[in-house]
Amino acid sequence: MSTDPTEAVGVLLQALPYIQRFSGTIAVVKFGGNAMSSPQLLEQFAEDIVLMHSVGIKPVIVHGGGPQIGEWLQRLGRTSTFVDGHRVTDADTLEVVQMVLIGKVNSELVSALNVHGPVAVGLSGQDAGLIEAEARHPDLGFVGDVTSVNPSIIVRLVAMDLIPVVSTIGSDSDGQAYNINADAVASAIAEALNAQKLMFLTDVAGLLGDVDDPATLIQRVTAAGARALIADGTIAGGMIPKIEGCLRAIEYGVGQVHLIDGRVPHALLLELFTDAGVGTMVTADGVA
Amino acid sequence: MSTDPTEAVGVLLQALPYIQRFSGTIAVVKFGGNAMSSPQLLEQFAEDIVLMHSVGIKPVIVHGGGPQIGEWLQRLGRTSTFVDGHRVTDADTLEVVQMVLIGKVNSELVSALNVHGPVAVGLSGQDAGLIEAEARHPDLGFVGDVTSVNPSIIVRLVAMDLIPVVSTIGSDSDGQAYNINADAVASAIAEALNAQKLMFLTDVAGLLGDVDDPATLIQRVTAAGARALIADGTIAGGMIPKIEGCLRAIEYGVGQVHLIDGRVPHALLLELFTDAGVGTMVTADGVA
Amino acid sequence: MSTDPTEAVGVLLQALPYIQRFSGTIAVVKFGGNAMSSPQLLEQFAEDIVLMHSVGIKPVIVHGGGPQIGEWLQRLGRTSTFVDGHRVTDADTLEVVQMVLIGKVNSELVSALNVHGPVAVGLSGQDAGLIEAEARHPDLGFVGDVTSVNPSIIVRLVAMDLIPVVSTIGSDSDGQAYNINADAVASAIAEALNAQKLMFLTDVAGLLGDVDDPATLIQRVTAAGARALIADGTIAGGMIPKIEGCLRAIEYGVGQVHLIDGRVPHALLLELFTDAGVGTMVTADGVA
Amino acid sequence: MSTDPTEAVGVLLQALPYIQRFSGTIAVVKFGGNAMSSPQLLEQFAEDIVLMHSVGIKPVIVHGGGPQIGEWLQRLGRTSTFVDGHRVTDADTLEVVQMVLIGKVNSELVSALNVHGPVAVGLSGQDAGLIEAEARHPDLGFVGDVTSVNPSIIVRLVAMDLIPVVSTIGSDSDGQAYNINADAVASAIAEALNAQKLMFLTDVAGLLGDVDDPATLIQRVTAAGARALIADGTIAGGMIPKIEGCLRAIEYGVGQVHLIDGRVPHALLLELFTDAGVGTMVTADGVA
Amino acid sequence: MSTDPTEAVGVLLQALPYIQRFSGTIAVVKFGGNAMSSPQLLEQFAEDIVLMHSVGIKPVIVHGGGPQIGEWLQRLGRTSTFVDGHRVTDADTLEVVQMVLIGKVNSELVSALNVHGPVAVGLSGQDAGLIEAEARHPDLGFVGDVTSVNPSIIVRLVAMDLIPVVSTIGSDSDGQAYNINADAVASAIAEALNAQKLMFLTDVAGLLGDVDDPATLIQRVTAAGARALIADGTIAGGMIPKIEGCLRAIEYGVGQVHLIDGRVPHALLLELFTDAGVGTMVTADGVA
Amino acid sequence: MSTDPTEAVGVLLQALPYIQRFSGTIAVVKFGGNAMSSPQLLEQFAEDIVLMHSVGIKPVIVHGGGPQIGEWLQRLGRTSTFVDGHRVTDADTLEVVQMVLIGKVNSELVSALNVHGPVAVGLSGQDAGLIEAEARHPDLGFVGDVTSVNPSIIVRLVAMDLIPVVSTIGSDSDGQAYNINADAVASAIAEALNAQKLMFLTDVAGLLGDVDDPATLIQRVTAAGARALIADGTIAGGMIPKIEGCLRAIEYGVGQVHLIDGRVPHALLLELFTDAGVGTMVTADGVA
Repeated sequence: MSTDPTEAVGVLLQALPYIQRFSGTIAVVKFGGNAMSSPQLLEQFAEDIVLMHSVGIKPVIVHGGGPQIGEWLQRLGRTSTFVDGHRVTDADTLEVVQMVLIGKVNSELVSALNVHGPVAVGLSGQDAGLIEAEARHPDLGFVGDVTSVNPSIIVRLVAMDLIPVVSTIGSDSDGQAYNINADAVASAIAEALNAQKLMFLTDVAGLLGDVDDPATLIQRVTAAGARALIADGTIAGGMIPKIEGCLRAIEYGVGQVHLIDGRVPHALLLELFTDAGVGTMVTADGVA
Repeated sequence: MSTDPTEAVGVLLQALPYIQRFSGTIAVVKFGGNAMSSPQLLEQFAEDIVLMHSVGIKPVIVHGGGPQIGEWLQRLGRTSTFVDGHRVTDADTLEVVQMVLIGKVNSELVSALNVHGPVAVGLSGQDAGLIEAEARHPDLGFVGDVTSVNPSIIVRLVAMDLIPVVSTIGSDSDGQAYNINADAVASAIAEALNAQKLMFLTDVAGLLGDVDDPATLIQRVTAAGARALIADGTIAGGMIPKIEGCLRAIEYGVGQVHLIDGRVPHALLLELFTDAGVGTMVTADGVA
Repeated sequence: MSTDPTEAVGVLLQALPYIQRFSGTIAVVKFGGNAMSSPQLLEQFAEDIVLMHSVGIKPVIVHGGGPQIGEWLQRLGRTSTFVDGHRVTDADTLEVVQMVLIGKVNSELVSALNVHGPVAVGLSGQDAGLIEAEARHPDLGFVGDVTSVNPSIIVRLVAMDLIPVVSTIGSDSDGQAYNINADAVASAIAEALNAQKLMFLTDVAGLLGDVDDPATLIQRVTAAGARALIADGTIAGGMIPKIEGCLRAIEYGVGQVHLIDGRVPHALLLELFTDAGVGTMVTADGVA
Repeated sequence: MSTDPTEAVGVLLQALPYIQRFSGTIAVVKFGGNAMSSPQLLEQFAEDIVLMHSVGIKPVIVHGGGPQIGEWLQRLGRTSTFVDGHRVTDADTLEVVQMVLIGKVNSELVSALNVHGPVAVGLSGQDAGLIEAEARHPDLGFVGDVTSVNPSIIVRLVAMDLIPVVSTIGSDSDGQAYNINADAVASAIAEALNAQKLMFLTDVAGLLGDVDDPATLIQRVTAAGARALIADGTIAGGMIPKIEGCLRAIEYGVGQVHLIDGRVPHALLLELFTDAGVGTMVTADGVA
Repeated sequence: MSTDPTEAVGVLLQALPYIQRFSGTIAVVKFGGNAMSSPQLLEQFAEDIVLMHSVGIKPVIVHGGGPQIGEWLQRLGRTSTFVDGHRVTDADTLEVVQMVLIGKVNSELVSALNVHGPVAVGLSGQDAGLIEAEARHPDLGFVGDVTSVNPSIIVRLVAMDLIPVVSTIGSDSDGQAYNINADAVASAIAEALNAQKLMFLTDVAGLLGDVDDPATLIQRVTAAGARALIADGTIAGGMIPKIEGCLRAIEYGVGQVHLIDGRVPHALLLELFTDAGVGTMVTADGVA
Repeated sequence: MSTDPTEAVGVLLQALPYIQRFSGTIAVVKFGGNAMSSPQLLEQFAEDIVLMHSVGIKPVIVHGGGPQIGEWLQRLGRTSTFVDGHRVTDADTLEVVQMVLIGKVNSELVSALNVHGPVAVGLSGQDAGLIEAEARHPDLGFVGDVTSVNPSIIVRLVAMDLIPVVSTIGSDSDGQAYNINADAVASAIAEALNAQKLMFLTDVAGLLGDVDDPATLIQRVTAAGARALIADGTIAGGMIPKIEGCLRAIEYGVGQVHLIDGRVPHALLLELFTDAGVGTMVTADGVA
């Protein structure tokens, strides 16, 4: 891209107050498996994260990998049963889940980031006792919930100016592994790190006043405001679990939670460093 | 096990000088895929490493996974071609190699160690630019050789009193991954860390004067001595590549290289903390 | 001692959980003058302390020297008067006490430890203002009580991975020296260091239900339990002051206080690293 | 300025490799008194410096103040004599020079920077012995040359993430102050700091092949190349002292020296973070 | 001066307890513009400060410059209006105030100190956001009051064993500078640093019972005592604002405030290191 | 002592350049047993050391105790044989030597210093492996020579701003103790610490041109100059071993060696902080 120099200077100066405001803040970014469907989106995501890192933000990435897990189970001729939207996970399935999350999705993310320099380090929740988990329900097998987070390995890596990339496998005290929902892990890690920002890269435009009309995007709302929108029925259907995840993170003490449209190229950059912004920011009451 | 207390005290005091001598030393341990065949051997290996760690040794584990890779390729119905003993590795094969090494073997090692406390952290050679690699030969596809090691991530984890567990995937500057021989990675990491000890857990008894007679085990030999044994034909056949790996590590500046019989239960403990010892120690000339 | 290798491995693995549990803990060990009567007991004590130190425990030794003081006063033809079991200490006697405690007993302990490496450093309570004392009673002369402990010199030496060995001479603000009871000094130092363990090496088997029957050894008791045993007369006679010393230390905030039979060879090792244990452990209420 | 978001993202990503390359580098920027003539240029300069600082560059500013000194001497009704282009500086003149440089120009620079946050700290060469000087020539009075630089105060302030702003007053060992040429001070400080970059903000377009034709701007030249251009007469007249200052800095070990046209708005930003670049970069031989 | 050696030893030993008592304490010293009238007094002041610094005291100097400002305004043919004793300060006047305080008085102080070694560093309240100020009254122009002190730059310089010398220019968040009363700045900095001592070098003998009789000097008084003396009329007239400054500093948490007669040669040394003392010490209630 | 304030200020200012010059330097002071004969000399010595320490010098004290050892052996009815001026030291004698040096002389020194604050820490050469020694000659028993010094314990204590006081007992690798000449220990420690100053407190006036005429005191001499004086017979008799000790220390790399008359009250203060000086300073060639 050949940019007019004056225009370029304008953009950089427009970014300056954002750079100053965010410098040194920890931003936990949840990157969904859907977002990896296109190599181009992955590459743009990596560019955004590296730019954030270069101007002093401390990103911590948490990723899922549902589509990739599904594809590999299919290749291996296995069929999955679902209960309440959770894949029932027996030992053989868990083995594949780990291989895909840790050995494939995490590896690809680390590799995409490290094209820009040796900055990323892959972690699973088993490393250094990062995520302690327990079974969610006997019927679900090795589907787990976070019981506690020991963030010291992340804190140290961040202090070394590295970018941790976390697979959502936790384990209990016997060393049994569990597959955990990535949104929940991102929230729990953001809480444990006392992160200033938690950013969910999703496949929706954000919180919409009218779910069928993108023009009704709500750019900023307080936790109380969001609860009121649920109560009056404005937030409905599939929007509810997403916004509840944001509200829980706010309760955990995270300052700002963003729902960002991961389908927009360079959505993170637009949100962080331009006046445009994309998606919805939820803040604690009294902050907005 | 119920031990006579007096006997127990004797053992501990016998171990004391070894504990004092090795405290603070870095020991790179290469753990082969073969050694993971039995859950019991894996468990014993984990106990040995955790005990080493508890008395002040700094272990760094490098693992392979040939058998496990072979098994998964077979499950997926893929056949491999071998050239000079190397598996020709196309992009699809490499994907499986990464999933098995990073997502399965490494995970299982970390998990076995962390049963004893949150001490282990899995790494691949792509993390924080640990291993830079290049293609070995165009005919072999993504089989790589180490071109350089950036050990800073290992150094930092060791300083945090953690145990790094390294999968042997490296990458080039374009982010292309390669599968690398685990013996070579262990030697290169030992060199980069200036490790005092490099220990190969193998499936042989050590260096034998007569390959058919275990009673001819050579317990200690200098690099020059080993070269003389090759020259006079005492070391022959399959023993040659193993001993050459040891000699190359000595040249790299590693103080002591051990060939240890991984089939013996708790072989590491026996070698390090008892007068018994198992296997063969190769030392720099002028040290033995 | 020639031990069966399998047996040796078993002992080391049996010790592992104890090593892990105690690593990094501060253990104040009170070593009585009686225990130095035999060179062999001194040597074994030194081995035990060095082994503790090698596996990560931070020992701090406090010693007395009653028998040695008595012997030297006798050699010098001096007779002592005792009041309530305390030797009346005039200036001339104090001079001999200091020479024996600091110049002889402390020196011998440091020397016995340093045979294993340069780890021990002798201290008196006068060094760097470690122990501030005052006269106990005008009739007793320079017999003192601890008024405060300034543990910074010990903290620093321990941080340097050294083993402080403390003679029980304190001084008041005018620089006047006092001889202080070693049990009291050990308790006061354990309190000031917030030590996890305080171990009294005594010449009894521990706390006995029936003082004449070693088979009635009480291995573990809470502070409340011990007080009940005093109240119901189970603990009686010479046992009372010993157990009261333990109770006072518990009140000071020390986690565990051990009465260990110093006449048993390697009693410390047996207590710490084997399932056997020797003597009695007193714990805070609600801990046992 | 309202920028198209896509355009903005493009600019930020274009800047990314420059940000990564320059992060952590020390850049000494010489800011001439001429450049302060317009409040707008000063404000833009401050924005540029603060942006550099925000993305990890460590700026150190050295300023002159010729025009301002001249103006105040005139107000006070003093006339100056010049010898070889140097103002003859008696004690009364020096007093005014110090007041203007330290009390006015430096203050205004610090103030303009600190509008963006408390980042700048004014220094004179007398502070903490920063610049030791000696008289250049008896006829010139208190005009000085740098004899040595003690950069420790700058090193510490930079480590505190502050921006030192240096007035070019040095002193000899008797405490006598001297006024020193700002170009010389900037070069000497860049040398003492082992700076990667030295940037002269000048009032020319850079090094021109034909001094009358801006289109003949030489964007990059090695030291040897520059010397050849002097030898063949391409560089001539007033260009010669400027380029010689650059060459001397290169000899001092500075990696890159820039001649930047300070009359162009945001010249520093354009040079550092866009592909455009302004002015001329002189590099050591073998680097370009 | 040729001193009898025995006499010299006596003086040094007499100073020893003061040196021990004051070692490591922060002493904020307010040095008035009047005290700079004589080069000799300035030189003696510098000697005193350097000696304080050499024996472990951490001096922080705050200076005014009223007479010097007046003189330069006069030279420039400007006349000042005074309201309630404050010079009405328009933009042109402020420019001169800054030039005189920062460029002349501060420079001369730094220079006088650094004759003894590179220890002093000049600061204005604008450096690193040291002093935030606001306008005192619209009629007074740029006469300011301290709204907050950010002492981190002073803390760091003191930790580097340097002597900060502070000009009393503060600024508001728009970067507008203000001239502030030096007594108030000294008190505010002493408070922000939690200084043990605040010393006002004045041109009076101290607090006098009878303002006309130097023999009625009150050497030590508590805050309550001083308030009683104001109430009963003992302290009257021009003495009142001075003593109120001391009382305010005591309220700020400063331990001891000294009114010292700056006209006495080496008044600081006499006060600090000899039994003589000069002037009046005000202490918190319950301390004297 | 009541000193004229003006006189006092003069003394302090006279001391200032010495304080500045010596601040931060390590000074090893050898204090002989003779010097302890009078309680007053001991007290004055303690005052001098504490003053040195208070103004930033880092003193390390090495003491002997010949007279005290002799007295105690006599009390115990033991007679000593001397060979070449060395007391033949059997095991029983060594026991007394240790008790006197460590338990009496060292204790008294530490106590005298700590009257001024908790600054001194007693050490013997056995602590933390400080002094390794070997037997000087079979006929002498446990009389030793220094074979090496491990100064890390001293370095750490000095860094903690403490004053180490060293008894001259060393030990070999078997833990056998030896009594060593204090001059030799002081030199060896000064060498190992790379001390700037080594000061021998002796019972002579210094190096005299004519041993019978105190007026012929040589205040300063280079090593070469001293060797010339030995060669031409000026230095003779008992002066020779003393000066040779100084020369050996200079060879060891110590900057300045002082022979100071310990019989003069406060000799250390006079030497260090007044223009008077006492005794003789020997310097490396090319330094004087």
